[in-house]
Amino acid sequence: MSSFEDADTEEMLTCLQMTVYHPGQQPNGIFQSIGFHKREKLPSREEVKFGRSSKVCNYTFQDRQVSRVQFSLQLFKKFGSSVLSFEIKNMSKRTSLIVDNRTLDFLHKVDLPDRCMIRFGDYQILMEKEDGVSLEFFETEFILSPRSLLQENDWPPQNPIPEYCHSVWSSPQSTSPMETDENEL
Amino acid sequence: MSSFEDADTEEMLTCLQMTVYHPGQQPNGIFQSIGFHKREKLPSREEVKFGRSSKVCNYTFQDRQVSRVQFSLQLFKKFGSSVLSFEIKNMSKRTSLIVDNRTLDFLHKVDLPDRCMIRFGDYQILMEKEDGVSLEFFETEFILSPRSLLQENDWPPQNPIPEYCHSVWSSPQSTSPMETDENEL
Repeated sequence: MSSFEDADTEEMLTCLQMTVYHPGQQPNGIFQSIGFHKREKLPSREEVKFGRSSKVCNYTFQDRQVSRVQFSLQLFKKFGSSVLSFEIKNMSKRTSLIVDNRTLDFLHKVDLPDRCMIRFGDYQILMEKEDGVSLEFFETEFILSPRSLLQENDWPPQNPIPEYCHSVWSSPQSTSPMETDENEL
Repeated sequence: MSSFEDADTEEMLTCLQMTVYHPGQQPNGIFQSIGFHKREKLPSREEVKFGRSSKVCNYTFQDRQVSRVQFSLQLFKKFGSSVLSFEIKNMSKRTSLIVDNRTLDFLHKVDLPDRCMIRFGDYQILMEKEDGVSLEFFETEFILSPRSLLQENDWPPQNPIPEYCHSVWSSPQSTSPMETDENEL
Protein backbone atom coordinates (compact mmCIF):
# COMPACT_ATOMS: atom_id res chain seq x y z
CA MET A 1 0.00 0.00 0.00
CA SER A 2 1.39 3.39 -0.91
CA SER A 3 1.43 6.29 1.52
CA PHE A 4 -1.17 7.98 -0.65
CA GLU A 5 -3.94 5.60 0.44
CA ASP A 6 -6.30 5.50 3.38
CA ALA A 7 -4.87 2.80 5.67
CA ASP A 8 -8.37 1.50 6.49
CA THR A 9 -9.88 1.34 3.06
CA GLU A 10 -6.86 1.51 0.78
CA GLU A 11 -8.62 4.23 -1.14
CA MET A 12 -6.55 6.81 -2.95
CA LEU A 13 -6.44 10.13 -1.14
CA THR A 14 -7.10 13.53 -2.62
CA CYS A 15 -3.90 15.54 -2.39
CA LEU A 16 -3.59 19.30 -2.18
CA GLN A 17 -0.14 20.30 -3.33
CA MET A 18 0.90 23.78 -2.24
CA THR A 19 3.91 25.47 -3.80
CA VAL A 20 4.88 28.41 -1.65
CA TYR A 21 7.07 31.46 -2.17
CA HIS A 22 7.85 34.58 -0.14
CA PRO A 23 10.60 37.05 -1.08
CA GLY A 24 11.91 36.95 2.50
CA GLN A 25 11.86 33.17 2.91
CA GLN A 26 15.66 33.21 3.09
CA PRO A 27 17.17 33.82 5.59
CA ASN A 28 14.16 34.65 7.76
CA GLY A 29 12.91 31.11 8.13
CA ILE A 30 9.28 32.04 7.54
CA PHE A 31 8.52 28.49 6.43
CA GLN A 32 10.79 26.70 8.91
CA SER A 33 7.93 24.92 10.66
CA ILE A 34 6.54 23.51 7.42
CA GLY A 35 7.75 20.10 6.33
CA PHE A 36 8.44 20.19 2.62
CA HIS A 37 8.10 17.25 0.25
CA LYS A 38 6.26 15.04 2.71
CA ARG A 39 2.60 14.23 2.53
CA GLU A 40 0.48 14.70 5.62
CA LYS A 41 -2.82 12.86 6.02
CA LEU A 42 -5.67 14.84 7.54
CA PRO A 43 -9.34 14.08 8.27
CA SER A 44 -11.62 15.72 5.74
CA ARG A 45 -14.09 16.78 8.45
CA GLU A 46 -11.57 19.15 10.00
CA GLU A 47 -10.98 22.74 9.04
CA VAL A 48 -7.35 23.39 8.05
CA LYS A 49 -5.99 26.70 9.32
CA PHE A 50 -2.99 28.67 8.08
CA GLY A 51 -1.50 31.58 10.01
CA ARG A 52 0.94 32.75 12.64
CA SER A 53 -0.47 30.97 15.68
CA SER A 54 0.98 27.54 16.25
CA LYS A 55 -1.75 26.91 18.84
CA VAL A 56 -4.63 26.97 16.39
CA CYS A 57 -3.08 26.61 12.95
CA ASN A 58 -2.18 23.39 11.15
CA TYR A 59 0.43 25.26 9.15
CA THR A 60 2.25 28.27 10.53
CA PHE A 61 4.19 31.09 8.93
CA GLN A 62 6.80 32.48 11.29
CA ASP A 63 6.22 36.09 10.42
CA ARG A 64 4.71 38.73 12.67
CA GLN A 65 3.04 40.34 9.69
CA VAL A 66 0.83 37.29 9.29
CA SER A 67 -2.47 37.17 11.20
CA ARG A 68 -3.01 34.58 13.92
CA VAL A 69 -5.26 32.78 11.47
CA GLN A 70 -4.77 34.08 7.94
CA PHE A 71 -7.07 31.76 6.04
CA SER A 72 -8.75 28.40 6.37
CA LEU A 73 -9.59 25.52 4.07
CA GLN A 74 -12.74 23.43 4.35
CA LEU A 75 -13.29 20.13 2.62
CA PHE A 76 -16.66 19.50 1.02
CA LYS A 77 -18.33 17.54 -1.74
CA LYS A 78 -20.04 19.32 -4.61
CA PHE A 79 -23.53 18.17 -5.53
CA GLY A 80 -23.29 15.59 -8.29
CA SER A 81 -19.58 15.01 -7.68
CA SER A 82 -17.91 12.06 -6.02
CA VAL A 83 -14.64 13.78 -5.14
CA LEU A 84 -13.55 16.19 -2.46
CA SER A 85 -13.31 19.90 -3.13
CA PHE A 86 -11.85 22.76 -1.14
CA GLU A 87 -13.36 25.99 0.04
CA ILE A 88 -11.11 28.83 1.18
CA LYS A 89 -12.11 31.58 3.63
CA ASN A 90 -10.19 34.72 4.55
CA MET A 91 -9.87 34.81 8.34
CA SER A 92 -7.84 38.03 8.53
CA LYS A 93 -9.59 41.30 9.29
CA ARG A 94 -6.93 43.51 7.77
CA THR A 95 -5.33 41.62 4.91
CA SER A 96 -7.07 40.70 1.70
CA LEU A 97 -6.71 37.23 0.28
CA ILE A 98 -6.50 37.00 -3.50
CA VAL A 99 -7.65 33.80 -5.18
CA ASP A 100 -6.55 34.03 -8.81
CA ASN A 101 -7.95 37.49 -9.56
CA ARG A 102 -10.68 37.57 -6.94
CA THR A 103 -10.18 39.59 -3.75
CA LEU A 104 -11.57 38.14 -0.53
CA ASP A 105 -12.01 40.36 2.51
CA PHE A 106 -12.61 39.16 6.06
CA LEU A 107 -14.92 36.12 6.12
CA HIS A 108 -15.39 36.02 2.35
CA LYS A 109 -15.20 32.47 0.99
CA VAL A 110 -14.95 30.85 -2.43
CA ASP A 111 -14.73 27.31 -3.73
CA LEU A 112 -11.18 26.68 -4.92
CA PRO A 113 -10.56 25.84 -8.57
CA ASP A 114 -8.54 22.64 -8.99
CA ARG A 115 -5.51 24.82 -9.74
CA CYS A 116 -5.23 28.37 -8.51
CA MET A 117 -2.91 31.00 -7.11
CA ILE A 118 -3.45 32.30 -3.58
CA ARG A 119 -1.83 35.56 -2.53
CA PHE A 120 -1.79 37.66 0.65
CA GLY A 121 0.81 40.30 1.46
CA ASP A 122 4.02 39.05 -0.17
CA TYR A 123 2.98 35.40 0.04
CA GLN A 124 2.30 33.30 -3.04
CA ILE A 125 0.81 29.81 -2.86
CA LEU A 126 0.05 27.80 -5.95
CA MET A 127 -2.61 25.25 -4.98
CA GLU A 128 -3.10 22.16 -7.12
CA LYS A 129 -5.60 19.44 -6.31
CA GLU A 130 -5.06 15.83 -7.32
CA ASP A 131 -8.33 13.91 -7.00
CA GLY A 132 -8.60 10.78 -4.87
CA VAL A 133 -11.40 8.42 -3.91
CA SER A 134 -11.51 8.57 -0.11
CA LEU A 135 -13.96 11.02 1.44
CA GLU A 136 -12.67 10.46 4.98
CA PHE A 137 -9.14 11.71 4.56
CA PHE A 138 -7.01 13.80 2.27
CA GLU A 139 -3.36 14.77 2.07
CA THR A 140 -1.35 17.94 1.88
CA GLU A 141 2.10 18.42 0.42
CA PHE A 142 4.24 21.55 0.45
CA ILE A 143 6.88 22.50 -2.08
CA LEU A 144 9.18 25.50 -1.65
CA SER A 145 9.70 27.55 -4.78
CA PRO A 146 13.13 29.18 -5.05
CA ARG A 147 11.67 32.07 -7.02
CA SER A 148 8.50 34.08 -7.45
CA LEU A 149 5.58 32.24 -8.99
CA LEU A 150 4.40 35.44 -10.58
CA GLN A 151 7.47 36.46 -12.54
CA GLU A 152 8.75 33.22 -13.95
CA ASN A 153 7.62 31.53 -17.12
CA ASP A 154 9.13 28.25 -16.14
CA TRP A 155 7.52 27.57 -12.78
CA PRO A 156 6.31 24.97 -12.35
CA PRO A 157 8.40 23.68 -15.24
CA GLN A 158 5.75 21.29 -16.56
CA ASN A 159 2.90 23.72 -16.29
CA PRO A 160 3.69 27.31 -17.14
CA ILE A 161 1.14 29.77 -15.82
CA PRO A 162 1.07 32.59 -18.36
CA GLU A 163 -1.60 34.49 -16.46
CA TYR A 164 0.82 34.99 -13.58
CA CYS A 165 3.79 35.98 -15.69
CA HIS A 166 3.66 39.66 -14.95
CA SER A 167 4.98 41.37 -11.88
CA VAL A 168 2.11 43.03 -10.07
CA TRP A 169 3.73 42.91 -6.67
CA SER A 170 5.99 45.06 -4.63
CA SER A 171 9.67 44.29 -4.47
CA PRO A 172 11.02 42.14 -1.64
CA GLN A 173 12.46 45.21 0.02
CA SER A 174 9.16 47.04 0.23
CA THR A 175 7.19 47.38 3.41
CA SER A 176 4.25 45.06 3.54
CA PRO A 177 0.88 46.64 4.31
CA MET A 178 0.07 43.75 6.64
CA GLU A 179 -0.68 44.11 10.29
CA THR A 180 1.98 43.65 12.95
CA ASP A 181 -0.59 42.36 15.35
CA GLU A 182 -4.30 41.83 15.54
CA ASN A 183 -6.70 41.68 18.37
CA GLU A 184 -8.02 38.41 17.10
CA LEU A 185 -9.38 35.45 18.92
CA MET B 1 -25.52 47.95 26.85
CA SER B 2 -27.82 45.06 26.07
CA SER B 3 -26.64 41.46 26.10
CA PHE B 4 -27.11 41.42 22.33
CA GLU B 5 -24.12 43.69 21.72
CA ASP B 6 -20.42 43.05 21.34
CA ALA B 7 -18.93 44.16 24.67
CA ASP B 8 -15.93 45.73 22.94
CA THR B 9 -17.62 47.62 20.16
CA GLU B 10 -21.24 47.74 21.34
CA GLU B 11 -22.23 46.52 17.92
CA MET B 12 -25.44 44.56 17.58
CA LEU B 13 -24.82 40.85 17.13
CA THR B 14 -26.31 38.61 14.50
CA CYS B 15 -28.49 36.03 16.24
CA LEU B 16 -29.33 32.56 15.00
CA GLN B 17 -32.51 31.42 16.69
CA MET B 18 -33.04 27.66 16.57
CA THR B 19 -36.41 26.17 17.43
CA VAL B 20 -35.98 22.45 17.97
CA TYR B 21 -38.34 19.51 18.14
CA HIS B 22 -37.93 15.74 18.41
CA PRO B 23 -40.86 13.35 19.06
CA GLY B 24 -38.81 11.66 21.81
CA GLN B 25 -37.66 14.84 23.53
CA GLN B 26 -39.77 13.89 26.58
CA PRO B 27 -38.89 11.97 28.68
CA ASN B 28 -35.61 11.01 27.06
CA GLY B 29 -33.82 14.25 27.72
CA ILE B 30 -32.29 14.46 24.26
CA PHE B 31 -31.93 18.23 24.62
CA GLN B 32 -30.98 18.28 28.30
CA SER B 33 -27.53 19.73 27.68
CA ILE B 34 -28.89 22.63 25.64
CA GLY B 35 -29.71 25.83 27.49
CA PHE B 36 -33.00 27.15 26.19
CA HIS B 37 -33.98 30.81 26.04
CA LYS B 38 -30.51 32.13 26.73
CA ARG B 39 -28.28 33.71 24.14
CA GLU B 40 -24.74 32.47 23.79
CA LYS B 41 -22.06 34.66 22.21
CA LEU B 42 -19.61 32.90 19.92
CA PRO B 43 -16.70 34.07 17.76
CA SER B 44 -17.64 34.16 14.10
CA ARG B 45 -14.29 32.64 13.07
CA GLU B 46 -15.13 29.35 14.74
CA GLU B 47 -17.00 26.45 13.23
CA VAL B 48 -20.07 25.49 15.30
CA LYS B 49 -20.62 21.76 15.57
CA PHE B 50 -23.80 19.88 16.45
CA GLY B 51 -23.85 16.18 17.32
CA ARG B 52 -23.52 13.49 19.97
CA SER B 53 -19.94 14.13 21.08
CA SER B 54 -19.60 16.60 23.91
CA LYS B 55 -15.84 16.66 23.29
CA VAL B 56 -16.03 18.26 19.88
CA CYS B 57 -19.52 19.70 19.57
CA ASN B 58 -20.76 23.08 20.76
CA TYR B 59 -24.29 21.69 21.04
CA THR B 60 -24.97 18.07 21.85
CA PHE B 61 -27.97 15.82 21.39
CA GLN B 62 -28.00 13.02 23.97
CA ASP B 63 -29.13 10.34 21.58
CA ARG B 64 -27.06 7.40 20.37
CA GLN B 65 -28.74 7.60 16.99
CA VAL B 66 -27.04 10.94 16.38
CA SER B 67 -23.58 10.97 14.80
CA ARG B 68 -20.60 12.22 16.77
CA VAL B 69 -20.74 15.33 14.61
CA GLN B 70 -24.03 15.55 12.75
CA PHE B 71 -23.62 18.90 11.04
CA SER B 72 -21.63 22.10 11.31
CA LEU B 73 -22.26 25.78 10.76
CA GLN B 74 -19.73 28.19 9.36
CA LEU B 75 -20.00 31.95 9.48
CA PHE B 76 -19.08 33.92 6.38
CA LYS B 77 -19.79 37.16 4.58
CA LYS B 78 -21.37 37.17 1.14
CA PHE B 79 -19.75 39.33 -1.50
CA GLY B 80 -21.47 42.71 -1.58
CA SER B 81 -23.07 42.15 1.81
CA SER B 82 -22.14 43.70 5.15
CA VAL B 83 -23.79 41.10 7.37
CA LEU B 84 -22.90 37.61 8.49
CA SER B 85 -24.37 34.57 6.79
CA PHE B 86 -24.34 30.88 7.69
CA GLU B 87 -23.24 27.87 5.73
CA ILE B 88 -24.32 24.40 6.83
CA LYS B 89 -22.42 21.17 6.09
CA ASN B 90 -23.56 17.60 6.69
CA MET B 91 -20.84 15.85 8.71
CA SER B 92 -22.61 12.49 9.01
CA LYS B 93 -21.70 9.67 6.67
CA ARG B 94 -24.96 7.78 7.05
CA THR B 95 -27.70 10.30 7.70
CA SER B 96 -28.93 12.84 5.20
CA LEU B 97 -29.48 16.42 6.27
CA ILE B 98 -32.47 18.14 4.72
CA VAL B 99 -32.38 21.92 4.36
CA ASP B 100 -35.88 23.00 3.37
CA ASN B 101 -36.39 20.57 0.49
CA ARG B 102 -32.74 20.00 -0.40
CA THR B 103 -31.02 16.79 0.67
CA LEU B 104 -27.39 17.03 1.75
CA ASP B 105 -25.28 13.88 1.92
CA PHE B 106 -21.92 13.58 3.67
CA LEU B 107 -19.83 16.75 3.18
CA HIS B 108 -22.42 18.51 1.07
CA LYS B 109 -22.82 22.16 2.04
CA VAL B 110 -25.24 24.97 1.29
CA ASP B 111 -25.62 28.59 2.31
CA LEU B 112 -28.50 28.88 4.75
CA PRO B 113 -31.52 30.99 3.84
CA ASP B 114 -32.35 33.56 6.54
CA ARG B 115 -35.22 31.29 7.60
CA CYS B 116 -35.21 27.58 6.92
CA MET B 117 -36.11 24.17 8.26
CA ILE B 118 -33.34 21.66 8.99
CA ARG B 119 -34.21 17.97 9.38
CA PHE B 120 -32.24 14.79 10.05
CA GLY B 121 -33.74 11.57 11.36
CA ASP B 122 -36.66 12.65 13.55
CA TYR B 123 -35.08 16.00 14.39
CA GLN B 124 -36.59 19.29 13.26
CA ILE B 125 -34.79 22.61 13.66
CA LEU B 126 -36.28 25.86 12.44
CA MET B 127 -33.38 28.27 11.93
CA GLU B 128 -34.06 32.00 11.81
CA LYS B 129 -31.35 34.61 11.42
CA GLU B 130 -31.66 38.10 12.86
CA ASP B 131 -29.04 40.38 11.30
CA GLY B 132 -26.55 42.29 13.41
CA VAL B 133 -23.63 44.60 12.70
CA SER B 134 -20.66 42.90 14.37
CA LEU B 135 -18.53 40.64 12.21
CA GLU B 136 -16.45 39.36 15.14
CA PHE B 137 -19.17 37.66 17.13
CA PHE B 138 -22.65 36.31 16.80
CA GLU B 139 -25.20 34.74 19.11
CA THR B 140 -27.25 31.57 19.24
CA GLU B 141 -30.54 31.02 21.00
CA PHE B 142 -32.49 27.77 21.36
CA ILE B 143 -36.22 27.41 21.79
CA LEU B 144 -37.91 24.08 22.50
CA SER B 145 -41.10 23.48 20.56
CA PRO B 146 -43.71 21.39 22.39
CA ARG B 147 -44.99 19.98 19.12
CA SER B 148 -43.87 19.12 15.63
CA LEU B 149 -42.90 22.03 13.43
CA LEU B 150 -44.16 20.15 10.40
CA GLN B 151 -47.74 19.46 11.42
CA GLU B 152 -48.80 22.64 13.11
CA ASN B 153 -50.20 25.74 11.50
CA ASP B 154 -49.56 27.87 14.54
CA TRP B 155 -45.86 27.38 15.19
CA PRO B 156 -44.26 29.74 15.62
CA PRO B 157 -47.44 31.68 16.44
CA GLN B 158 -46.34 34.91 14.80
CA ASN B 159 -44.95 33.30 11.70
CA PRO B 160 -46.95 30.39 10.33
CA ILE B 161 -44.98 28.21 7.95
CA PRO B 162 -47.49 26.90 5.44
CA GLU B 163 -44.82 25.08 3.50
CA TYR B 164 -44.18 22.84 6.51
CA CYS B 165 -47.83 22.23 7.37
CA HIS B 166 -47.98 18.74 6.03
CA SER B 167 -46.78 15.64 7.74
CA VAL B 168 -44.02 14.10 5.68
CA TRP B 169 -42.33 12.36 8.55
CA SER B 170 -42.64 9.10 10.36
CA SER B 171 -44.61 8.88 13.57
CA PRO B 172 -42.80 9.29 16.90
CA GLN B 173 -43.04 5.55 17.46
CA SER B 174 -41.26 4.65 14.26
CA THR B 175 -37.73 3.36 14.18
CA SER B 176 -35.28 5.95 13.02
CA PRO B 177 -33.07 4.99 10.09
CA MET B 178 -30.10 6.63 11.78
CA GLU B 179 -26.93 4.90 12.77
CA THR B 180 -26.40 3.60 16.27
CA ASP B 181 -22.75 4.32 16.03
CA GLU B 182 -20.25 5.53 13.53
CA ASN B 183 -16.59 5.02 13.20
CA GLU B 184 -16.09 8.72 12.84
CA LEU B 185 -13.25 10.90 13.90
